[in-house]
Amino acid sequence: MKDRTYELDRAHVFHSWSAQASLTPMVVERAEGSYLWDNDGTKLLDFSSQLVFTNIGHQHPRVVKAIQDQAATLCTIAPQHANAARSEAAHLIAELAPGDLDRVFFTNGGADAVEHAVRMARLHTGRRKVLSRYRSYHGGTQTAINLTGDPRRWPNDVGADGVVHFFGPFLYRSEFHATTEAEECERALAHLEHTIQLEGPDTIAAIILETIPGTAGIMPPPPGYLEGVRALCDRYGIVWIADEVMAGFGRTGTWFALDLYDAVPDLITFAKGVTSGYVPMGGVIISPRIAATFDDRPYPGGLTYSGHPLAAAAAVATIETMKDEKMVEHAAMLGEEVFGPELRAMAERHACVGEVRGVGAFWALDLVADAATKEPLAPYGGSSPAMNEVIAACKKGGMLPFANFNRIHVVPALNITVDEAREGLAALDAALTVGDAHVHSVGDAHAGA
Amino acid sequence: MKDRTYELDRAHVFHSWSAQASLTPMVVERAEGSYLWDNDGTKLLDFSSQLVFTNIGHQHPRVVKAIQDQAATLCTIAPQHANAARSEAAHLIAELAPGDLDRVFFTNGGADAVEHAVRMARLHTGRRKVLSRYRSYHGGTQTAINLTGDPRRWPNDVGADGVVHFFGPFLYRSEFHATTEAEECERALAHLEHTIQLEGPDTIAAIILETIPGTAGIMPPPPGYLEGVRALCDRYGIVWIADEVMAGFGRTGTWFALDLYDAVPDLITFAKGVTSGYVPMGGVIISPRIAATFDDRPYPGGLTYSGHPLAAAAAVATIETMKDEKMVEHAAMLGEEVFGPELRAMAERHACVGEVRGVGAFWALDLVADAATKEPLAPYGGSSPAMNEVIAACKKGGMLPFANFNRIHVVPALNITVDEAREGLAALDAALTVGDAHVHSVGDAHAGA
Ligand SMILES: Cc1ncc(COP(=O)(O)O)c(C=O)c1O
Ligand SMILES: Cc1ncc(COP(=O)(O)O)c(C=O)c1O
Repeated sequence: MKDRTYELDRAHVFHSWSAQASLTPMVVERAEGSYLWDNDGTKLLDFSSQLVFTNIGHQHPRVVKAIQDQAATLCTIAPQHANAARSEAAHLIAELAPGDLDRVFFTNGGADAVEHAVRMARLHTGRRKVLSRYRSYHGGTQTAINLTGDPRRWPNDVGADGVVHFFGPFLYRSEFHATTEAEECERALAHLEHTIQLEGPDTIAAIILETIPGTAGIMPPPPGYLEGVRALCDRYGIVWIADEVMAGFGRTGTWFALDLYDAVPDLITFAKGVTSGYVPMGGVIISPRIAATFDDRPYPGGLTYSGHPLAAAAAVATIETMKDEKMVEHAAMLGEEVFGPELRAMAERHACVGEVRGVGAFWALDLVADAATKEPLAPYGGSSPAMNEVIAACKKGGMLPFANFNRIHVVPALNITVDEAREGLAALDAALTVGDAHVHSVGDAHAGA
Repeated sequence: MKDRTYELDRAHVFHSWSAQASLTPMVVERAEGSYLWDNDGTKLLDFSSQLVFTNIGHQHPRVVKAIQDQAATLCTIAPQHANAARSEAAHLIAELAPGDLDRVFFTNGGADAVEHAVRMARLHTGRRKVLSRYRSYHGGTQTAINLTGDPRRWPNDVGADGVVHFFGPFLYRSEFHATTEAEECERALAHLEHTIQLEGPDTIAAIILETIPGTAGIMPPPPGYLEGVRALCDRYGIVWIADEVMAGFGRTGTWFALDLYDAVPDLITFAKGVTSGYVPMGGVIISPRIAATFDDRPYPGGLTYSGHPLAAAAAVATIETMKDEKMVEHAAMLGEEVFGPELRAMAERHACVGEVRGVGAFWALDLVADAATKEPLAPYGGSSPAMNEVIAACKKGGMLPFANFNRIHVVPALNITVDEAREGLAALDAALTVGDAHVHSVGDAHAGA
């Protein structure tokens, strides 16, 4: 429905990642738990968590109250002064962080967390280059977008200045012609080491990796890969930055995706789930070794809202609520008992599902036009009528999906009920039937290629 | 006082722009209007507005209530959907913006606003270089810090990649050996044009300028300078980005510092005052000409919290409160009737005051050890025992100042009462006496140099 909100949006709001003229945004009037309502009264089950950040669902009353209380107490204060909300948030985050990481530099979101982590790594090592993988997303500011390994980088690319991309493990579309996870892991690590050796180890400040790449396709690394990355970083004096902006804070059924593995990075970037997006916040969790670099030498970076009290209070309430309501455990159960089995069963039923990948409340369906060639249902970096129909069918079925290129991601709130989860899966199941109609029959495959 | 907040801060909070080991942050317990209280119960008059952002003072009940109400309604939603708070905020900002600028791209703060403005300019022009002035601050992310013309850039400098610095008008420390504002203006514009010509006009995407440089010293440009910048940009096809992150939203006694001049830029960056910092928000206001570049071609930039509803509601309430309570008019009156005359009178009384500059609630005292040589009371990029004593004396007098190198800035809330303003000025007056003790006597000046 076109109303004042819609008209003012079209007149005055410039939107992210879009051609502005053709936008027709949905007007969201209200949201609660796993549901939201548009201004026509249409109710949608939120299987997207927006941009995968409302980990505790919409409008959790306890976090809303904490924000209201902090607003009444102290909305804001400059970063150089201390305040209770920020101290408690840093304390809770340090407690949850893996290994010995225990200092927190707060930012406003994920991109600036990545910017600052890279700066810390560069100054700590005195080296400049940063390695990152293709099929990744690290944010929209200059350093972060150039580290990104998805097509959003291309129009911003400044000629790989200071950045080198390599291939990560991804068995379904293996760069290394591997046939097992173990083989993919071994070959991907060898490839990473060759890249380090050929770039020159002494030129490399950091390797940044989403622990589980998110927007790029939810590809949990095979067992041993991150342990291997740790070993390579140790061997060559390189800082390992684990980007947990999307994967962190319960999404994987563990507090950090890193908890699924046996390796501790030097820096962790976070955002999104830390406040469930209720108030913007991100940050970097820092190992004592890197923090010590800035004990006596000033850290040359900062921002006006570092450790913003309102955001910090939202983080404290979000973390405590997730603990008390056992949302992380619930997400793990959902992954094991609901999403894993049911999505795999769907893959059996639907020709358009090439692969199901994920863990916890973090799942991707890799949709294909041809199971044998794995030809994606939309090209890399693009959309297709087929994908648009699948997405439209999800919405028609009352479910708001997260879609990227040829993939549908199932990334609901961590506290979605089993019934709600099944309701969304039913809508997805119906939508995949629409996708199946676009799968080449055996004859077509060759005709179309 | 050392308490839990302090101890957790020292254990877990990594602070902006600092060597971490020696920090002893003040713990702020509460704040109201122009005052704040530390955890010893010490009451301080806030003459800093923190980092010059609490333009409506601390804990304004109307804005606190608006945040609480929005929290109860809809804390957050992804940028691609429309929502009422964001639409209203964009509408109000577009209404206030000078000239024909009427589209708003929302960010989380000032640095990312600058990052995105630069990207828009680069893509709009197809050129890469950006000119900025020495003595400026544009933020902490990679592009923003390299554009910055203060010592915080140095440890981050990547070799001026894509950035060229020039000298702006600053009569008190004139680069151009000028003796009048008119001469400084004319020579600074000639210098800028020469820089453009020698860099190659076709290589320059944008000129970014704080309308009135803030942290670098509050130097209002002479009449005609910005009009001349506009003309140069038109002549050479260059985008003019006005950075109003600190100067905007009432600070100068006008809604934008630009309103003091007769020239309209292509892009305006804002943050801080737009929400008075109560919820993090920044953004870029875009001219129709630049927005049109992205009508059919996707804008390749974005962030998770663009147009965050809670921040947008804070912006709406802040702007409406500023209007209803006539805070901008009040700031103008304060500048004309209180700060201007009283600070100038202080300069007469105190040998350490080299110059007083400013407008509205945006004033700097340039402190010197020698009025004749203008030798600063602390070196560029550093501190000094003299400055530390002046700052300590301000605090001892119950006033929290904003200090930078050899300067004290008087940047209180726009709605500070005349009595409160005089209270702070009295503390400053006493502190300057401490500064006077460090001024070289005529004999000393030569001995010390
Ligand atoms: C892994 C990862 N890193 C960084 C970012 C950037 O975060 P933001 O959009 O808050 O800048 C994102 C956002 O989706 C992300 O998924
Ligand atoms: C003029 C100007 N631009 C940009 C910034 C950066 O803003 P933020 O600290 O919110 O990133 C500042 C901050 O002080 C500023 O004063």
